[in-house]
Amino acid sequence: MIIGAGTAGLGAFREVRKHTQSYLLVNDGPWGTMCARVGCMPSKALIEAANAYERRRAFADLGIRGGEQVTVDRAAVLARVRELRDHFVEETCGLTAELGERALSGRAELLDGHRIRVGDDEITADRIILATGSHPTVPARWTPFADRLLTTDSLFEQATLPDRIAVVGLGALGAEVAQALARLGCTVTAFDAKPLIAGLSDPNVNAALLVALRADFALHLGHEVELARDGDGLRVTGGDVSVVVDRVVVALGRTPSFAGLGLDRLGVPLDTDGRPEVDPTTLRIGETDVFLVGDAAGDRPVQHEAADEGHIAGLNARTAALRRYKRRTPLAIVFTEPSVGRVGVRYDKLDRETVVIGEASFVDQGRARIALRGDGCLRIYADKETGALVGAELCAPDGEHLAHVLALAIERGSTVVDLLRAPFYHPTLEEGLRTALHALAKQLPDHDGFELASEPV
Amino acid sequence: MIIGAGTAGLGAFREVRKHTQSYLLVNDGPWGTMCARVGCMPSKALIEAANAYERRRAFADLGIRGGEQVTVDRAAVLARVRELRDHFVEETCGLTAELGERALSGRAELLDGHRIRVGDDEITADRIILATGSHPTVPARWTPFADRLLTTDSLFEQATLPDRIAVVGLGALGAEVAQALARLGCTVTAFDAKPLIAGLSDPNVNAALLVALRADFALHLGHEVELARDGDGLRVTGGDVSVVVDRVVVALGRTPSFAGLGLDRLGVPLDTDGRPEVDPTTLRIGETDVFLVGDAAGDRPVQHEAADEGHIAGLNARTAALRRYKRRTPLAIVFTEPSVGRVGVRYDKLDRETVVIGEASFVDQGRARIALRGDGCLRIYADKETGALVGAELCAPDGEHLAHVLALAIERGSTVVDLLRAPFYHPTLEEGLRTALHALAKQLPDHDGFELASEPV
Repeated sequence: MIIGAGTAGLGAFREVRKHTQSYLLVNDGPWGTMCARVGCMPSKALIEAANAYERRRAFADLGIRGGEQVTVDRAAVLARVRELRDHFVEETCGLTAELGERALSGRAELLDGHRIRVGDDEITADRIILATGSHPTVPARWTPFADRLLTTDSLFEQATLPDRIAVVGLGALGAEVAQALARLGCTVTAFDAKPLIAGLSDPNVNAALLVALRADFALHLGHEVELARDGDGLRVTGGDVSVVVDRVVVALGRTPSFAGLGLDRLGVPLDTDGRPEVDPTTLRIGETDVFLVGDAAGDRPVQHEAADEGHIAGLNARTAALRRYKRRTPLAIVFTEPSVGRVGVRYDKLDRETVVIGEASFVDQGRARIALRGDGCLRIYADKETGALVGAELCAPDGEHLAHVLALAIERGSTVVDLLRAPFYHPTLEEGLRTALHALAKQLPDHDGFELASEPV
Repeated sequence: MIIGAGTAGLGAFREVRKHTQSYLLVNDGPWGTMCARVGCMPSKALIEAANAYERRRAFADLGIRGGEQVTVDRAAVLARVRELRDHFVEETCGLTAELGERALSGRAELLDGHRIRVGDDEITADRIILATGSHPTVPARWTPFADRLLTTDSLFEQATLPDRIAVVGLGALGAEVAQALARLGCTVTAFDAKPLIAGLSDPNVNAALLVALRADFALHLGHEVELARDGDGLRVTGGDVSVVVDRVVVALGRTPSFAGLGLDRLGVPLDTDGRPEVDPTTLRIGETDVFLVGDAAGDRPVQHEAADEGHIAGLNARTAALRRYKRRTPLAIVFTEPSVGRVGVRYDKLDRETVVIGEASFVDQGRARIALRGDGCLRIYADKETGALVGAELCAPDGEHLAHVLALAIERGSTVVDLLRAPFYHPTLEEGLRTALHALAKQLPDHDGFELASEPV
């Protein structure tokens, strides 16, 4: 039995159906993954339009005329977002469209470790995979303002966007949406209670990102936000800053959706949030026959990890002989411009006694300069004895691509010199990696200046 | 003694000056590297403007209005190209600006393996590094039309660009320039004598690139081109096609510049082009004390390899104990849209008995579709027994970044499964790599469907 047909649930489904036709897929609410419906895909469609429109500001410098006559139709932008979304939702639904009785719509509740109730039905299963996902976090005290609040569940459903918008919370989604709405011509005021944004923990990278984002919108950090009615709008107050806006985008993260699922009936200890312990290598809850995966588990709430968790649970649910799977090098990307990447060990988890740091700026990097996109900072962390790469945080033009190179390097157990031995073409943004790697190499023992391996003739 | 102050010569210079102050750097013609003056950098500046202008065609679909009122000022584009070029040339000249008597302008000629003549001076050296570069190839029979021909030496010097342009030769530079000029509003007709362009050897990738480029300009393959005067212009005829244009961009590659250098006085065998044999791991010519590097050697005429060759020769020139250096995984990029990448072993050098091929289309790839940039084809080659990645050819949106990931994977000796174990974030173009890798994995022995390593609990 698989509860939830999002990315994680569908990952499990793909493995389970290879093994047996005796399964049931239960889903509450609309079918189609969160990613396709309200997450990765519609946000990227919004960002694509915003960045294309923003580029008009570079036209004059590039020799292109008429940029000042270009305008954006926010209603048309949102209409395209929904059109694309419908396409991607249809794709994810295609997988489950012909399941017939093996797909069931409804809210599932565990009765014990092998029984669930859906509506009036009680169903027994040898293994149960819980993939119930997550929902946007909205503080209960803001419920009275619900008519003026937007989350990712409602943002892309708007016919158009008003002029004055506040974004509260600057994690991945908040940072992306704040910049996109600002670039689409909304007056955006953004708040976060913490000094670091976009999931970054490296202060240098964070500082570079703040400089870049502040070119697009007002950004206030370090204060909790309070809301109050003000005419037709909402007054948003954080520290000394107080603005009246038409809508508030609440981007305070997502809450795992396991309330009411009956986890307390599994006979395993729960933490104060009501969450059981899950082995990240098997996805099994304690010694039960129940697996908890994806955003509902909340351990690695990104799409590719949710898919992995589904596959791992699906494989383990098929057999009595459980296997432990080696999880991937952590990778997270935030699709701002410059884009943010976090790879491997985070800066705030580093043992500062054992690592060295290499930094590169993209402000005057060759290719970035040609593209009028000089912005950002890259920091790579390596073991100071072995030179092994352990992590990186960055914000850089096309940083999403640099993050993939670094993630592969770490996944393959590469040292600073190993990565320097890879070819970097000229002129590319990837050359910025070399700058940081050279800065690292100089701090390592036995560094002799040229990276290619050699042997005597 | 280092002859030539381009990328390769400067690479050698960086190593030599760490070891000795007893050196001389001789350069013929303007100082500053080919890359900065007439190569990588100005071409990228031209392409950046062309692609920014081209993007207006996507505006209406994205919800942006007024794209039809945007125009391009080709004179302004070229002025910016030169401004950027001057900046980058200044950077490369900075390295040698304060050498005083250790830098000499003039044409060098070998008298023997330890003596050169520059003008009236004869100079002796323990080691000589030849880094004399290359020049655009122009057929001698076209000399009468020189006033209507452009090469990279003259293209970026033009005050503006005429409306009718032919591009002859569709290697890396020809393909880039043809597309950029077409996107800047010139009517471009392009020719190549061969059926494969942009250095590709994989017919599927080539076919996808042709489809993409033909949206921008007319492209005729398979015939040698002849020129003739026609009024103020030139008539360009290739096969059945004949057009009259204002200028012809000759992009038939570059010829290594070693004529007149006196290589015949080194006492080593020369091939029919007058070129001596050079060990690519030491850069030494035969048993001499002379090294031949960079475009003049012509073995790997790309910037990062020229720099490597300079460093290797510089290191080896410092010592009697020569070392062999392990060269990098081959990587070449062509900065068209979609961009072209060639990594590792070329398709036409594969042993088709021992490899399997995985293919992915980018026409309907998720992120590409969101960006209205769905175009291109990726083919990855792997050993059919071990799954070791051996090469790839591709044209894809942001293909330059995908090529770097593949190059690192091959450099690190990765198999298909090794690369599948790296994290790929959603939604990115890198996910297109996974599609091709999955297609490969299915053809490999012992494929069990899910890539993460596991062990029994």
